[in-house]
Amino acid sequence: MEFVTALVFIFIACACGIAWAIFNWLAVHKIEIHHKHEGLNEKLQGDQQEKIETLLEIGEHITDGAKAFLKEEYTDCSVFIAIMAVALIFVSPWSTLAFVLGAATSMLCGYLGMSIATAANYRTAFCAITSLSDAFQMAYRGGCVMGFLLVSISLSILSLIIIIYNSVLVKDNNQEDLISMFDYVAAYGLGGSTFALFGRVGGGIYTKAADVGADLVGKVEKNLPEDSPKNPATIADNVGDNVGDIAGMGADLFGSFAESTCAALVVSSTQLRVITEQGPIIHIGQLMYPLVVSAFGIIICIAVSGYAVFIQKVTHINKIESSLKLQLLLSTVAFLLVFTFRFQIGSLKPWHALVCSLMGLWSGLLIGYFTEYMTSHSYTPVREVAKACGTGAATNIIYGLALGYLSTIVPIVAIALTALLSMKLLSFYGVALAALGMLSNLTIGLAIDAYGPISDNAGGIAEMSELGEEVRTSTDALDAAGNTTAAIGKGFAIGSAALVSLSLYGGYLTRIQTYNKNGIDDPIIFAMLLIGAMLPYAFSAFTMKSVGKAALQMVEEVRRQLHEHPGIYAGTEEPDFRACIAISTKASLKEMIPPGLLVIVTPTAVGLLFGPQAVAGLLPGALISGVQMAISASNTGGAWDNAKKYIEAGFYKNDLGEVKKKGSDEHKAAVIGDTVGDPLKDTSGPSLNILIKLMAILSLVLAETFCKTGWLYKD
Amino acid sequence: MEFVTALVFIFIACACGIAWAIFNWLAVHKIEIHHKHEGLNEKLQGDQQEKIETLLEIGEHITDGAKAFLKEEYTDCSVFIAIMAVALIFVSPWSTLAFVLGAATSMLCGYLGMSIATAANYRTAFCAITSLSDAFQMAYRGGCVMGFLLVSISLSILSLIIIIYNSVLVKDNNQEDLISMFDYVAAYGLGGSTFALFGRVGGGIYTKAADVGADLVGKVEKNLPEDSPKNPATIADNVGDNVGDIAGMGADLFGSFAESTCAALVVSSTQLRVITEQGPIIHIGQLMYPLVVSAFGIIICIAVSGYAVFIQKVTHINKIESSLKLQLLLSTVAFLLVFTFRFQIGSLKPWHALVCSLMGLWSGLLIGYFTEYMTSHSYTPVREVAKACGTGAATNIIYGLALGYLSTIVPIVAIALTALLSMKLLSFYGVALAALGMLSNLTIGLAIDAYGPISDNAGGIAEMSELGEEVRTSTDALDAAGNTTAAIGKGFAIGSAALVSLSLYGGYLTRIQTYNKNGIDDPIIFAMLLIGAMLPYAFSAFTMKSVGKAALQMVEEVRRQLHEHPGIYAGTEEPDFRACIAISTKASLKEMIPPGLLVIVTPTAVGLLFGPQAVAGLLPGALISGVQMAISASNTGGAWDNAKKYIEAGFYKNDLGEVKKKGSDEHKAAVIGDTVGDPLKDTSGPSLNILIKLMAILSLVLAETFCKTGWLYKD
Repeated sequence: MEFVTALVFIFIACACGIAWAIFNWLAVHKIEIHHKHEGLNEKLQGDQQEKIETLLEIGEHITDGAKAFLKEEYTDCSVFIAIMAVALIFVSPWSTLAFVLGAATSMLCGYLGMSIATAANYRTAFCAITSLSDAFQMAYRGGCVMGFLLVSISLSILSLIIIIYNSVLVKDNNQEDLISMFDYVAAYGLGGSTFALFGRVGGGIYTKAADVGADLVGKVEKNLPEDSPKNPATIADNVGDNVGDIAGMGADLFGSFAESTCAALVVSSTQLRVITEQGPIIHIGQLMYPLVVSAFGIIICIAVSGYAVFIQKVTHINKIESSLKLQLLLSTVAFLLVFTFRFQIGSLKPWHALVCSLMGLWSGLLIGYFTEYMTSHSYTPVREVAKACGTGAATNIIYGLALGYLSTIVPIVAIALTALLSMKLLSFYGVALAALGMLSNLTIGLAIDAYGPISDNAGGIAEMSELGEEVRTSTDALDAAGNTTAAIGKGFAIGSAALVSLSLYGGYLTRIQTYNKNGIDDPIIFAMLLIGAMLPYAFSAFTMKSVGKAALQMVEEVRRQLHEHPGIYAGTEEPDFRACIAISTKASLKEMIPPGLLVIVTPTAVGLLFGPQAVAGLLPGALISGVQMAISASNTGGAWDNAKKYIEAGFYKNDLGEVKKKGSDEHKAAVIGDTVGDPLKDTSGPSLNILIKLMAILSLVLAETFCKTGWLYKD
Repeated sequence: MEFVTALVFIFIACACGIAWAIFNWLAVHKIEIHHKHEGLNEKLQGDQQEKIETLLEIGEHITDGAKAFLKEEYTDCSVFIAIMAVALIFVSPWSTLAFVLGAATSMLCGYLGMSIATAANYRTAFCAITSLSDAFQMAYRGGCVMGFLLVSISLSILSLIIIIYNSVLVKDNNQEDLISMFDYVAAYGLGGSTFALFGRVGGGIYTKAADVGADLVGKVEKNLPEDSPKNPATIADNVGDNVGDIAGMGADLFGSFAESTCAALVVSSTQLRVITEQGPIIHIGQLMYPLVVSAFGIIICIAVSGYAVFIQKVTHINKIESSLKLQLLLSTVAFLLVFTFRFQIGSLKPWHALVCSLMGLWSGLLIGYFTEYMTSHSYTPVREVAKACGTGAATNIIYGLALGYLSTIVPIVAIALTALLSMKLLSFYGVALAALGMLSNLTIGLAIDAYGPISDNAGGIAEMSELGEEVRTSTDALDAAGNTTAAIGKGFAIGSAALVSLSLYGGYLTRIQTYNKNGIDDPIIFAMLLIGAMLPYAFSAFTMKSVGKAALQMVEEVRRQLHEHPGIYAGTEEPDFRACIAISTKASLKEMIPPGLLVIVTPTAVGLLFGPQAVAGLLPGALISGVQMAISASNTGGAWDNAKKYIEAGFYKNDLGEVKKKGSDEHKAAVIGDTVGDPLKDTSGPSLNILIKLMAILSLVLAETFCKTGWLYKD
């Protein structure tokens, strides 16, 4: 394919994606919220005007809280980004430019996601009063806006960078120029991931400090229901969903997307000629394959989400989860159409590239479905965990941890086989294509991922505005489906992070020129493999303890308020939400620094002190250990959450056949498990993705620097 | 050194070790237990004769239970060992012989340890009535018997095997003969570790099923004190300490010792000439260095433990822990005397070998002390965990998990540096020497390790025989020191397992002739690294769930007994101990099979199907992931245990300055943590050591077979 043809196709796809996002955005905003809305009379008990006003007010509180946090977070991160940007000038000013653009895109994506989610959440709650179908549409379309905007914007900015760098830096298709140009472009991924690290960690600490803190006092000590308006930490908890699960996740997946594309470009520019044996000179147009696949993904996903928006109707609670899962399945199957493309990459057999992409895509689906099996209470594993609550919190925890450990088997085998096959076919280029394949229906993935926190928030808002049992039942059902899709989304995120990181590692190895000198029997390689494998543990320790510490502060504040102002518990006084928001904000911004530095400083220091070989051991060590921890942490947490929901839904019976629900000892044991799982599944687990990706891309960008240093160790 | 000189030295050392063990054994048995013992009158309240008779009776119950379990376990394992032995005939009949001898030695060591511990435990309880110093002596000397017997017996059997094989198999010092002879000898280590696997896993499940089950009903539901005679699971719990912590641990450490010696022999026989550049022909005498070092260790340890037995007096509770730690420090420092040896190995610089050994020894000590820092309630980390109990079980668990993750940093860096330096100096031979160095004061290590469960049992027996508060205070103090030394011992076991496994991996690589073809960028290597790193997770999942399941059965039985026989709780009826013992026995024998097969079948199947390269990725994957999990699991569990003890001892104060002890909410939260920690620290954690060692030695023995197969994958 010609360079220009590829670009035209990419930009058309991006334009369509953005148009579709705007269309949905307008649809979300079209809903007018007032107490005279059609059908409201029949459904809403009590003072309608007051309830609707409360709903709007809470929506505003959450929006303000989220905006305030993002503002502070962005300010703090900008300082850090600026320092790194200055340091990168020593590598190349072009790297600096791409780095800053990547970080800026990541921030933009996080901010857009947050804006849409905070607009959609209270509208979803409002719609749930009159129609489940409308509420589902609202939440799903909110998710679509985020998914399509994020992918389209980042793909078009990346393409623009390539156009500019190509015209400025590459003379007469000089192959050397081409290679170093893509090295500079790779800093785009670095920028995205650097910001994503702080977004995920900071957001994760924020949301879980609020959640754990709210639960510990509210549910355990005071027996308040979830999202009770009497709990001062409730609003902070809801804000947390937006800054952690929406803005943080958006930044994370943008990072994956940008990095896997950059990895494919970097690896292809150097490797293609090796693979294709006496291949012809490479033209830039031939390297556009990964971007064209992503563009193709946008178009497929528009069609698939159009089906959900225009044709499918979610008329019953039972249909929610299947509709969302159908989206994923449809977009995966439709991707087989990519076979109609006959994209010539050098002298590669086109089917090789296709097989790699499809291996990634389908193993992603497998991981997603398996994750659902392990974490949904429709299946045996979670029910066993729930059953273990019968003998107390300790057995619940033991069973939950065992479930998480066990759940690594299938995803790891899937990732290993994908890596094996794609490396066999196209070496690290194949791995990059597999990673992109797994992310090719990212827009749908993001849409159903963002759907989750929107519904979760809608539930919280419905509770706080006292919209009644029936509305809460609808939003709970929406939320429950969101939990499942969130688990699937985490599976995708981890799987793709592993493949992205592996392909970046391939890029790193080609850069340090020791492609065949990385045997495990090499002393520095082995020692660093071991140390690399330790990093995810250290990182998890930092983040979990941060959540614990911040949650303790939150607990003290909530206790103080409830103690000093008895009116709050009686329902006559409004709690001070802002104090809790301030605690989460302050704690998360402070606590995100040590784990952030660990990820950035360790590979840099190891490379500078021990040289490029040492990093060649450090990266795979962190990768193979981190991916296991991420999977088990996410799934353990998800299983505990759903075991608790299983009991709350009244499905649990003890040996005597008695149903045990909220308030029972079994439920208390389940709540303890859920609370332990919170930092695992929403802070350390998802942040580990970024750890393994960021370390790899940082090392790739600094590879040439490492080759000149290695002050302490000589081979 | 000449072969004969080396052997004479080794056998003299072993004879001294055995003599010293017998001397202590006689001293233990010299104590006569009757109610007219001197000084008993003043110390023991109530009916002395009845109490002493109860004490003897309980001692007998425990002995019988432990013997019965070992008998069944040994019968089951023998079947498995026989099957493997038959399969090994296809490798070589000589391997089979060594394998069977290794397994038999391991069984013998486990059995001897158990016999001594069950003889020493009630005697320790008895001595504690009149004198703390005597009680300490009793427990410590019991430990010494085990330590010295185990090391001396196994070293002499191994030497005998070498003498026989050398005279039969090696013609005129033919170098090829020498190499294959040591391949056969390596099966001795395989036999030891295969049995140790079942010993550790079976024993670990037994002890923790009983412990968790006893705690869940006794402490949590019925508010009975630990080791209450009213709890039907108490005797099973005490039996468990003997079969898990004594017999299992003995088999485990025998395995480490045998394997590291075999690894050193295998690696040295092929590698020495490579390292020493145009070195002369190797004579077998020059290869005896590792055995001579171990023999030297026995002599050092006799001197050090003689100091504890004859000179040091433990007159006060405060001195217990420091006496034990002094033993470790003295034996480490005294080992510097090894510098007086000038052992010529080929044309190596003697100091290279010494440096490797000492690196191992000292990093072992560092790991031990650091483990103590992380798990003793004298220091900040555990106190923070205890503090977290103030907000409930969930924060306790979060803090505990974070502590375990964090505690990997120092040991991993120590192991990585030791590996780096010793590989740099002497390649994998250096690693084997470092492993042996870490195990060189194994006798003392085992003695103070076995001391722990003996004291623990003594406490239980004192409680059950109602010997009174004061005696219980003494035994509790002995037990608390035992917890610390157990933590140190676990640190040693993990550290040495990592180094042993690495050196065996080196042996494996030299056997598969692809010494320089194991780059991480090789598709099969990377894929298998990933899968290898998953195995410890799968293994932990199996073992933890097994404990959970068996504990649930135990809970049901205990509940049934307490419900159907109210006389038990009232103290008028004796509970049916045997039913609980039967449950633990049956469950552990059944549940040890899946994890056992996982460890043995996986490397075999991978090797047969995917060839030697695949295993070359699998082993380091399992190693670098398993060692992290083992460390974090052990330390998390240890920290929870001691956080609970901290609260029980009355050190914990809440924010209002109130002391919270047994029965408080804080204590309940701590008990939940302790219960979760039980399977982590005593089942999965320590079994992971064996996983990484056994997989490595099995692959080494099967290396040549793998080279001929690899049916599914071609390079």
